[in-house]
Formats: sequence, C-alpha cells, structure tokens
Amino acid sequence: MTDFAQTKTLFELPEGVIYLDGNSLGPVPKGVEARVGEMIANEWGKLLITAWNKAGWMAMPRVLGDRVGRLIGAPEGSVVLGDTLTLKVYQALAASLELNPERRVILSDSGNFPSDLYMAEGLIKTLDRGHELKLAAPEDVLAAIDEDVAVLMLTEVDYRTGRRHDLTALTARAREVGALVIWDLAHSAGGFAVDVSTNGPDFAVGCTYKYLNAGPGSPAFIYVDPALAGDVRPALSGWLGHRAPFDFELTYHAGDGIDRMRVGTPAMLQFAALEVALEVWEGVSLDDVRARSIELSELFISEVARRCPEVTLASPRAADARGSQVSFRHPEGYAVMQALIARGVIGDFRTPDILRFGVTPLYIGEDDIIGAVDVLEDILTNRLWDRPEFKTRAFVT
Amino acid sequence: MTDFAQTKTLFELPEGVIYLDGNSLGPVPKGVEARVGEMIANEWGKLLITAWNKAGWMAMPRVLGDRVGRLIGAPEGSVVLGDTLTLKVYQALAASLELNPERRVILSDSGNFPSDLYMAEGLIKTLDRGHELKLAAPEDVLAAIDEDVAVLMLTEVDYRTGRRHDLTALTARAREVGALVIWDLAHSAGGFAVDVSTNGPDFAVGCTYKYLNAGPGSPAFIYVDPALAGDVRPALSGWLGHRAPFDFELTYHAGDGIDRMRVGTPAMLQFAALEVALEVWEGVSLDDVRARSIELSELFISEVARRCPEVTLASPRAADARGSQVSFRHPEGYAVMQALIARGVIGDFRTPDILRFGVTPLYIGEDDIIGAVDVLEDILTNRLWDRPEFKTRAFVT
Repeated sequence: MTDFAQTKTLFELPEGVIYLDGNSLGPVPKGVEARVGEMIANEWGKLLITAWNKAGWMAMPRVLGDRVGRLIGAPEGSVVLGDTLTLKVYQALAASLELNPERRVILSDSGNFPSDLYMAEGLIKTLDRGHELKLAAPEDVLAAIDEDVAVLMLTEVDYRTGRRHDLTALTARAREVGALVIWDLAHSAGGFAVDVSTNGPDFAVGCTYKYLNAGPGSPAFIYVDPALAGDVRPALSGWLGHRAPFDFELTYHAGDGIDRMRVGTPAMLQFAALEVALEVWEGVSLDDVRARSIELSELFISEVARRCPEVTLASPRAADARGSQVSFRHPEGYAVMQALIARGVIGDFRTPDILRFGVTPLYIGEDDIIGAVDVLEDILTNRLWDRPEFKTRAFVT
Repeated sequence: MTDFAQTKTLFELPEGVIYLDGNSLGPVPKGVEARVGEMIANEWGKLLITAWNKAGWMAMPRVLGDRVGRLIGAPEGSVVLGDTLTLKVYQALAASLELNPERRVILSDSGNFPSDLYMAEGLIKTLDRGHELKLAAPEDVLAAIDEDVAVLMLTEVDYRTGRRHDLTALTARAREVGALVIWDLAHSAGGFAVDVSTNGPDFAVGCTYKYLNAGPGSPAFIYVDPALAGDVRPALSGWLGHRAPFDFELTYHAGDGIDRMRVGTPAMLQFAALEVALEVWEGVSLDDVRARSIELSELFISEVARRCPEVTLASPRAADARGSQVSFRHPEGYAVMQALIARGVIGDFRTPDILRFGVTPLYIGEDDIIGAVDVLEDILTNRLWDRPEFKTRAFVT
C-alpha cells in the first residue's frame, strides 16, 4: 500500500498554499535543487565537455526514458525523452501519415489540447497533399472512425474538463479500420496506470512537468511500438537520431528503433531535475494513486455540490470517466480563480469559464480539499471575486 | 578595451585544466548555480504555476532573445529562443522553401554540420516534391549559387577545421539570383562580431552552449528578417507561436513576427542559466574578443609549427579565414586527444583525424596556450598517446 503521508514529505510545498495545479506544473521534489546544483558544479563545472560521456549525459534520454516507460507500461527501449510534447506530436503524426500513405484524414476531437491540433494543421499545410484534420466532439469520436482515417490522435484526458476517453475501445475500433493511433498522455502519465503495450497505440507522447513533477519545460517523451519503430522514417531527422552521430556522415541513416526519435542536444539541467522527480515513484503504486485520486475527487465534488451552488461541475460525474482533475464552471471563472490564488488556493482558469483543479495524491490530502472548498465557498458566498484586480486578464493561468 | 583578466574571473574553471573546448561547451559562468537554484527554490518552488507570469518565465524567450540579438546585430524583437538548433534549422528551411515555391534546390556545403544536412534531407522526404539537397565543397559554394537555388544554407564556421565563410559575399550572390539565405551561427555567436542586419540573411540560427556558455542543451535562437517575419508560415506551428496561446482556439493563427517561431513550453532551468551567461557580455567588445582570439590562435599555430612537427594545421593559415578555433591533424588524432585530456588539456576529436581546440579569450590566455602546447609536444615526442586505453573509442569527444 502506498504511504501517501510519506510521499508528501518528498515535495517542497510552500507554507499557506493549497496546491491544486499539479496537472499543469507539479511542485518541486526535494533533492531537485541539490541534484541540479551538483550537475552544474561537478559535471558541467569539472568534467566540462567530457561529461557527455563521463557523467552519462548522452545516455540519459534513453535511461530516464525507460523509467518513464515503466509508468506507462512500455517495455525497455521503447521510450525516449527530449524536446517538447508539441514536437513529439509532430514526429508521431508525420510518421503515421507516411505509414498509411493511401489515407488523408487525421481524426482528433475538439477536446484535444490545441497545440496538438495546430501541429496537425501545420503538417498538413507542409505536406500539401490533400490531408484533412477532422475534429469530432469527444463523445462522437468512436462513430467517426472510418476507413478514411489514416491516424487517430487523441489526448486521453481533456485538459479543461478532465473527461477521460476509453482509449482501449477507441484504439480497437481504429485498428479494425486500419488506422494508426497516437495517444497523448500529457494528463495521464503519473495520474493513473497506463498500459501502452496491451492493445495499445502505435505512438504515445506526453510531458513530464505535470503529474511527473519534473519542472517547467522538462523533456517530453515519445513511445513507439517496438514492432513499428524500425519502419518509422523520422521527419525531424536530427543528428542524435542518426545511427552513428559521431561519425558525422553527410547522409542521414536512422538509428535503431526508438533512438531515431532523438533530434538535437538534450537539455541536461532539465534531465537532472527529471532524474530526481522520477525517484518519487519508487514504491508508489499507480493503482493506489488512482484509488486515492478518486476518493479525493469525490470528496471535492460532493463538498462543492453541497456548499457552492454558484458553480456547476464541468467534469464528468462518473469517476471512471475522469482523469485526475476536477473542473467547475462559473461565469466569472477568471476572477474567482484569481481570488482563490490570492487566498493561497492555487488552481487555474481555462477559457471561457472553467476553474480547474488537479488532484494529486502524492502531496494532496483530505485537509487540502476541505481547505480549498472552505475558501471557494467564502469567495462565492461573499462575492469576494468581484474586485477589479481579479478581473484584469494576465497572460496565463 | 575589454579586460580579459577580469572576464576570466567570471567563470568557474577547474584547477589543473586547460580548457580549449569552449567551442563545443562553454564552462560554467559564476552565478549560474545560484540563479538556477533560486529559480527552483523561489520561483518554481514558491510561485509554482503562477511563475509563468509572476516570474516572467513566459516572456523569457523574447527578453533573452533580444540580448542574444545584440550579439549578432539583430534589432529588438527579431530573435526568439527555444528548442534546439537542429529544430531551428528545420523551421528556417521549411519557411524558406515555401517562400520560394518555384525552386527545388537547397544549397549547402560538405563542411556544414551534419545535423543541418540531415534536417534538410528529412524535410525534402517529407515534402516529396522533388527538392534536392546540393552540397558543394566549401570553396565552391560561390560558383554553385545559381537560379535553381531556393535557399542557401551555410554554417559560417566549419565545425572541424574552423574555416570561415565570407557570408557577406555569398549572401550578396544568393540575393542576385533570387535565393533565400540561412546562416547557421553556431560557431559564430560570441566568437566574433556578427551583423545579421546589414546585407544579412533571411534567417539566422544558432546555439547558446558554445561561445555563449549557457550550458548543456541550452536553448537555441532564431532570427528572422523583420521584413519577412510576417510572411513566414511556421511549419512547427505550436501553441506558443499562436497569436493568443491562452485563448485555446481550435485553429492556428500565427503570432506577430518572431513570436510565431515559438513552438512548445520553454525549458526554464536552461533559461535561468542562459540569463547569467549573457551577463558576462556586459562591457565586452566582440571586436576585442576577435582581436585577442587571433593573437592567441597565431601563438598556438606558430608554437605547434615549431615544436610539434607530427601534426599538420587543419585550419586555414590566414586569420581572417578562420573562426575562433584551431584544428590540427594527426593520424592517431583520437588517441592523442585522449592523452591530452588525461593530462588536463581538454579539446576534442573529430573524425577522421582532427584535434580541435576552441580559442575563447574570455577565459583563455597565453599561459593556457603555451601550457597546452607543452603537453602536446611531450605527448607527441614521447608517443605517450600510444597506449591501449587512449585508443578505445567512447561515444563522444
């Protein structure tokens, strides 16, 4: 049984803050500052260029990739880290369209994170061969999967509402019609158990700064089905995906399997943070995390329903139809969220009216949920959000 | 006059090491560890998600982009940071081919860094419209620029030999025939003065971990000629290049000017390091850096010529035909470099036989050059490289 009182001690959590935005940026795992400092002082500082070998830097995208892989059911050697999720989406999409050259449709849904859709749109324009991005409503995706679909690309959990797709069923249907499948696990990895290997996708991508707590701009991951990896032509054919980068051949020859999804020089300070962040998961059962997340989410939903009639639930009511977040709607959602943040309850706002809260059992418990609802109730009952400074739109969150 | 004794105090340089590989990975600027630690503890740690606004994270790719821009002669608002150099090459190439749609040739040279060529090769395969990557010998590029060329893509300084192109002349010729121009400034920025604005290129790209000392995997930069930026369709159309990323529209609309070259979430720990690394340049004249680099390089070349007949100069003999590195050839170059490194003289090896040394006046002086030649002479005269442990090829350097 995972000891959540113990996992909470593994994070630096500021006094007076209830942090319900781990679905957007996880908090600092203890040890990150020391490890990053050590990399700067002792590896970069003392080994200098030789650290790429001697400190194992060059291998880290694969070594830590395997550790992320364990959290999503991927076999050793099928996951590599680097770049950003947006770029990993591009790699997966470009490869999928080439592997299914007779078809012209990328199918996704209107609940997908816009960057995934933008990358599809950009790729389609670059290809200029009549491809089309089709967007179904989330609940209509299954019916929209037909034999025109080259690739089905879905983010499992809706970034706004937390609605969770039944990816297994959707993937099975896509297989029946001969479509490839990409899973975006941005809001899944570290939120609950994922299994890419059993009736899984061709490609899975995700980020490590949400439920994996690796810090702002930490590397993304990409999984490629090992049966397929050797057939993928990398669209972003950078030198570190070459079979022998340090031979400096003038012609590209793709590396073995997943290595070919590497592109350029990895951002090593971010890898140092990720290394520590992944240690948190030793001894943690993702099934326990899921069970606890549901307990906390149910508590959150029922308390809000009872005490805060001004908001409505934006997330599905059924626990198995949600990821690890709970969202509510309020017409003045932006101002309400600013008022919450001013009181130390940190969630975020998503346009047009969504108050979004991540439920992250590694460091959040019942007290935090009740404390957050106390503040929310006060803000709503007393219209404390109705102040000009809470209505001035800043850039983000 | 730049005070190089003073600039040397701005770096953490390990005892007993002569570091001649700043052309590959600059050393740690003092203050980087503290600044990165502060970002982790106080920004990520205390502000959490709100740091994207409150700590100015979201703006840093543009704010620090302007500071890099000053080092390459770019006007405010024409440079943005992010991702890796390899990806910035892809953005520049894809845009160039679309802006010159009637032509089919990407012209580069066989001295270019292979990753640039690999990205061109990959893009051509993705486009599948009969484009061709033509590689001239470096000395034949001028003659190879003709009216078939859609875009001329050159790295100013050859990563192996340090040979420097006359980019102004090559760019002028490319303009005459209606070709677009991309400069890769990986080995230029921070090595000497660059001016992208006067008879400059359409796109310039580069990295910040070489002469700019921002650490392993620090963000790349891209400059787009402001007159052109509004016409560029970003091939990598990620959400942070959208005109309103936090509106989460389903359709991509490119941001103004250079903003559209942003892709995904920036790697903030790397930006913290870069911020400190750029402070080193306050009060430094790049013309002084260049003059001093030539002095030190001439000393290096003449000392080696006099004392180490076993090696031959791989770099051009004329100072103005070199960047800020000096390279030599030796049939057992790999073993010689390992022997040098074992003695604390750190350069690197490039296949097949090149000993490569960066000349970086900010922290390298005459003593270092003479000290390095002393060790090289000893190793060569006494065949100290001829030991099995120096011949076992590791992954890199």
